[in-house]
Amino acid sequence: SSFSGCHLQEVVYKLNALLICCCFVFCRRPPKLRQISWLLFVFFSSDIEISRAQSPKAVDVLAKEIGLLTDEIEIYGQTKAKVRLSLLERLKDQPDGKYVLVAGITPTPLGEGKSTVTIGLVQALTAHLKINSFACLRQPSQGPTFGVKGGAAGGGYAQVIPMEEFNLHLTGDIHAITAANNLLAAAIDARILHENTQSDKALYNRLVPVVKGVRGFSSIQLARLRRLGINKTDPETLTEEEISRFVRLDIDPSTITWQRVVDTNDRFLRKITIGQANTEKGFVRQAQFDIAVASEIMAILALTTSLEDMKERLGKIVVANDKKGEPVTAEDLGVTGALAVLMKDAIKPTLMQTLEGTPVFVHAGPFANIAHGNSSILADKIALKLVGEKGFVVTEAGFGADIGMEKFFNIKCRASGLVPSVVVLVATVRALKMHGGGPSVSAGAPLKKEYTEENLQLVADGCCNLQKQIQIAQLFGVPVVVALNVFKTDSPAEVDLVCKIAKQSGAFDAVPCNHWSDGGRGAVKLAQAVEKAANQKSSFKYLYSLELPIAEKIKTIAQKVYGAQDIELSPAAQSQIDRYTRQGFGKLPICMAKTHLSLSHQPEKKGVPTGFILPISDVRASIGAGFIYPLVGTMSTMPGLPTRPCFYDIDLDPVTEEVKGLF
Amino acid sequence: SSFSGCHLQEVVYKLNALLICCCFVFCRRPPKLRQISWLLFVFFSSDIEISRAQSPKAVDVLAKEIGLLTDEIEIYGQTKAKVRLSLLERLKDQPDGKYVLVAGITPTPLGEGKSTVTIGLVQALTAHLKINSFACLRQPSQGPTFGVKGGAAGGGYAQVIPMEEFNLHLTGDIHAITAANNLLAAAIDARILHENTQSDKALYNRLVPVVKGVRGFSSIQLARLRRLGINKTDPETLTEEEISRFVRLDIDPSTITWQRVVDTNDRFLRKITIGQANTEKGFVRQAQFDIAVASEIMAILALTTSLEDMKERLGKIVVANDKKGEPVTAEDLGVTGALAVLMKDAIKPTLMQTLEGTPVFVHAGPFANIAHGNSSILADKIALKLVGEKGFVVTEAGFGADIGMEKFFNIKCRASGLVPSVVVLVATVRALKMHGGGPSVSAGAPLKKEYTEENLQLVADGCCNLQKQIQIAQLFGVPVVVALNVFKTDSPAEVDLVCKIAKQSGAFDAVPCNHWSDGGRGAVKLAQAVEKAANQKSSFKYLYSLELPIAEKIKTIAQKVYGAQDIELSPAAQSQIDRYTRQGFGKLPICMAKTHLSLSHQPEKKGVPTGFILPISDVRASIGAGFIYPLVGTMSTMPGLPTRPCFYDIDLDPVTEEVKGLF
Repeated sequence: SSFSGCHLQEVVYKLNALLICCCFVFCRRPPKLRQISWLLFVFFSSDIEISRAQSPKAVDVLAKEIGLLTDEIEIYGQTKAKVRLSLLERLKDQPDGKYVLVAGITPTPLGEGKSTVTIGLVQALTAHLKINSFACLRQPSQGPTFGVKGGAAGGGYAQVIPMEEFNLHLTGDIHAITAANNLLAAAIDARILHENTQSDKALYNRLVPVVKGVRGFSSIQLARLRRLGINKTDPETLTEEEISRFVRLDIDPSTITWQRVVDTNDRFLRKITIGQANTEKGFVRQAQFDIAVASEIMAILALTTSLEDMKERLGKIVVANDKKGEPVTAEDLGVTGALAVLMKDAIKPTLMQTLEGTPVFVHAGPFANIAHGNSSILADKIALKLVGEKGFVVTEAGFGADIGMEKFFNIKCRASGLVPSVVVLVATVRALKMHGGGPSVSAGAPLKKEYTEENLQLVADGCCNLQKQIQIAQLFGVPVVVALNVFKTDSPAEVDLVCKIAKQSGAFDAVPCNHWSDGGRGAVKLAQAVEKAANQKSSFKYLYSLELPIAEKIKTIAQKVYGAQDIELSPAAQSQIDRYTRQGFGKLPICMAKTHLSLSHQPEKKGVPTGFILPISDVRASIGAGFIYPLVGTMSTMPGLPTRPCFYDIDLDPVTEEVKGLF
Repeated sequence: SSFSGCHLQEVVYKLNALLICCCFVFCRRPPKLRQISWLLFVFFSSDIEISRAQSPKAVDVLAKEIGLLTDEIEIYGQTKAKVRLSLLERLKDQPDGKYVLVAGITPTPLGEGKSTVTIGLVQALTAHLKINSFACLRQPSQGPTFGVKGGAAGGGYAQVIPMEEFNLHLTGDIHAITAANNLLAAAIDARILHENTQSDKALYNRLVPVVKGVRGFSSIQLARLRRLGINKTDPETLTEEEISRFVRLDIDPSTITWQRVVDTNDRFLRKITIGQANTEKGFVRQAQFDIAVASEIMAILALTTSLEDMKERLGKIVVANDKKGEPVTAEDLGVTGALAVLMKDAIKPTLMQTLEGTPVFVHAGPFANIAHGNSSILADKIALKLVGEKGFVVTEAGFGADIGMEKFFNIKCRASGLVPSVVVLVATVRALKMHGGGPSVSAGAPLKKEYTEENLQLVADGCCNLQKQIQIAQLFGVPVVVALNVFKTDSPAEVDLVCKIAKQSGAFDAVPCNHWSDGGRGAVKLAQAVEKAANQKSSFKYLYSLELPIAEKIKTIAQKVYGAQDIELSPAAQSQIDRYTRQGFGKLPICMAKTHLSLSHQPEKKGVPTGFILPISDVRASIGAGFIYPLVGTMSTMPGLPTRPCFYDIDLDPVTEEVKGLF
């Protein structure tokens, strides 16, 4: 099937006409004209106004256009639908399309527009070049949406619409993750309390009660017995010793690594003491809440390949050690089935559309600094079947190529077996100037003049970061196309300089893009370059072998990707590595938790830092997701609300039901 | 329009046939026959199997049948849809149907079947008597679903289907409430931190930043200025004193009453210390998490009458006092708009169906002991229009009539202006025997023989509770029909005795019901009795005048409803009452937080306790929801997980995608 899209011209014309009319109306008062025009411009070009000016097609129409059968979708309102995984079985013999990853240079805190490039690119491919394409995006976290960053639907004329649906609850996946994560957390502490306050016999009577005269093990309990090597099925036949082993998980509270989560920027939950009510009988302990998208269950959602695989991964989650040092899993707590039930709908990707009516999957979550932050394998796989052999799937990796892309290749591609054809590396003149020594850039503060006036020297000096990120992509043997996301303050000379240096640095091509102001039309050249690059021979390879010891794998990433001289393991990190190796988890890939604001661990070090020793403060394991998770320096897993959070500007008109201020 | 329903016979026949066939197949081994038949019976008569055996009609078909227009629904999957509030405007001239409340006697911890009666009654009305009817139910909390109680979709042949949809995320309303509740909580602590660590000037610069050369107040800030009596709109013109008043909410942390919530039974969050990370600079404080359905935002959802009203209520939420003792609101924190945006879809009731294909609204939440626990006014109002003048809307109040029904009349009916026609009071022989002095009943433990063998004396003695609950309903001037939910172990003499005593005690009628085993057919007599009662003159009145002082209102409920001799206010409760009265909140109705297991505050006191003094340990205020909230004795607002939680039996078949063990 051939996908369809619409051009943006109609919308743009309408808005311009309205703008001009308004100016004329107010023309009698010339001094105000400029001000009013400006206000109108700001109003009509705000992301949410653009989003609203284009009415999305009904999602069942979109689904039909891209070849989905009626019983393969579950509609959520007019503009969102979940897509069933049965599709993968139906299309299993269909060849995959081309697989394009969008990554970036080391960003400023404002972000450099990877989402807009992703959307601009698919708009260009499908609506302008008539090549089937799919964008696979991550669902934004409500933390940043109401906190500092705002939404993540793209922007300008390269957006997912309706952006308020995209940026709010969507189809509830993150809420499902929160519910599952916190059920497991509650199960851990409750179990410790019950074991500490009851005899073996009392525990056994409660865990295996007589129901309607019959006493039997549940299937989860039978599985536990088998793991314990107790091959009995009649509860009356267990010896006292077997009963004791069966009823006691003997969790060592000091080893609990499973944290509670909320999808809210709630800094006061970064370190807390729990269990202080009398009913918990003194079993207090220190704990923390993480932001929901950092949950291992989010990582599982992104990396799973089927419902069966997801259930297996959920069961394998290691939450703590027992007092003998053996791992305690979700399965041991008897909660695998409940977690799978809570996640049964979340596993289905959500279908939406771009401003130009081309299809988008939204699935899994962001935060490539503290998580792997990639969109889901399932969304990518389904999209690769739907676009057909000549089509393109454009998926996004969070933050700079040093973290999002590295994890995409070494973790996600390993789990999926998919081979990427092209990397699109997004750069901005703004970020390059920062890397060249420009003044600091922060959210909320006005940009310094270096960023709004031509400064070729800063750009040239900053291109070292671009060059390094190109080289990182090349380590994996995949051709790189640089997409320069052009701002209206960028001079032609600056744009040319970046493209020239990019090509000299080994990029297959480098193209200026104007999708923010022009939609897909502004990214046609990028689309053409990507199409050409996809025909290049890709000699994709992983950066390290899984057989290497954990510390060696960390060192490989630190040296080859970040440019560190060496790594330094804290005693805690070393002992965790030893423990995980002993427990048999040494062959997993590595998911670094590192700042996204520098190639190094120090956010203020811009450009290409060298000679630094990367400090590994701690190492954790996400056994269900399937990776080892080293913490580089101090990484907060819970953002905070600033003095003036985004929610200050968010409002709802109770009459029109319009959402305001959501960017 | 005339609603349509289907009878259950087809399903029942199929299951029976299957059961008989299976028995024959295994007949060659007679000793096993009984056991196998029993297992088959248990399997085929489990709630989830019954739910699955009947395939629901597509929700758009159902919507059409009950007279909804295509653009008045938002479909969520095949079996759920949200209904837009615009309907109320379209049908505003349509007369309302009859309004029936289902309440109960003081229950055992197992529950006495109010939900099944509600569903059986609408199945009888619509599918059997061809009278339009609607059931309005509450969305279950995931806490009990995975904890002790299990789901709340009804049971047997009187269920909402598909029950796994009903019992899991539904359309995300409780998740939206959790998100909104916790955003407000995070905003409070973050604001205190920022005020404590910044000068007036720094705060002002951050709260009112220069954006693109312009400095302006947001609309929320302009509203705050007006409340402060500062009639200025240009940020440059405020005096230092005005700036200080504007930027500082000066929240007194010891007065914070706004708690965080999760929809999980997580007992370790009952009392916690937050803010212990270094980044929070020592501003630690004691806090707690409540179960999500106890959030004031849930109460607002249930009591609101429009989007505009909801937004206003959200803004009025009082979260703490400032250091001068004045209330600090959500509006002061600038979060009203964001809360409204998060709740914009939750305000729309969710349409589902019974096993016999009749319509059901699911909206707002349970926990009538620690909240008001009624379904929503909006769902009731929409349903009353849809059924037409001769139709019936059956809505449910949580737990015994002493708490759920009392709150329904005094709080919910006051907010809605709706007048109920009939109260259906659900009783069981089991609960009456408990009130008559039978042994204690608890979840998980097998029932004692008193409950499975005929015992007329225990029944007769326990009817005092039924009589008292009938009298409570009569205080409000509404006719009472007693629905005796018959179990297979109840003897005909026991059933007759209850009905006789009920009628002697002033019930309009008393009817045995067999909806669990027979669906709507088993509740036809109840439906006929309700229809007759609805033609009686109802002389509905509230129990107390809002003009009474807070303590007098509490005393009225304690004495007239619970049968207390008096109340005893703790010093904390007295000082809160004084404060709320001073702050102008004295004219609100009362929402008691009291155990549901006794008419008194002591769960072990069954029957009709007398001569007790009701201890009021504390008093809180839900200003947005619009009630004062006294705590009777110690009431936990966070349930715990037992040693063997429900999740032990919950599983997902990854191949068929079937959910198992959800009751």
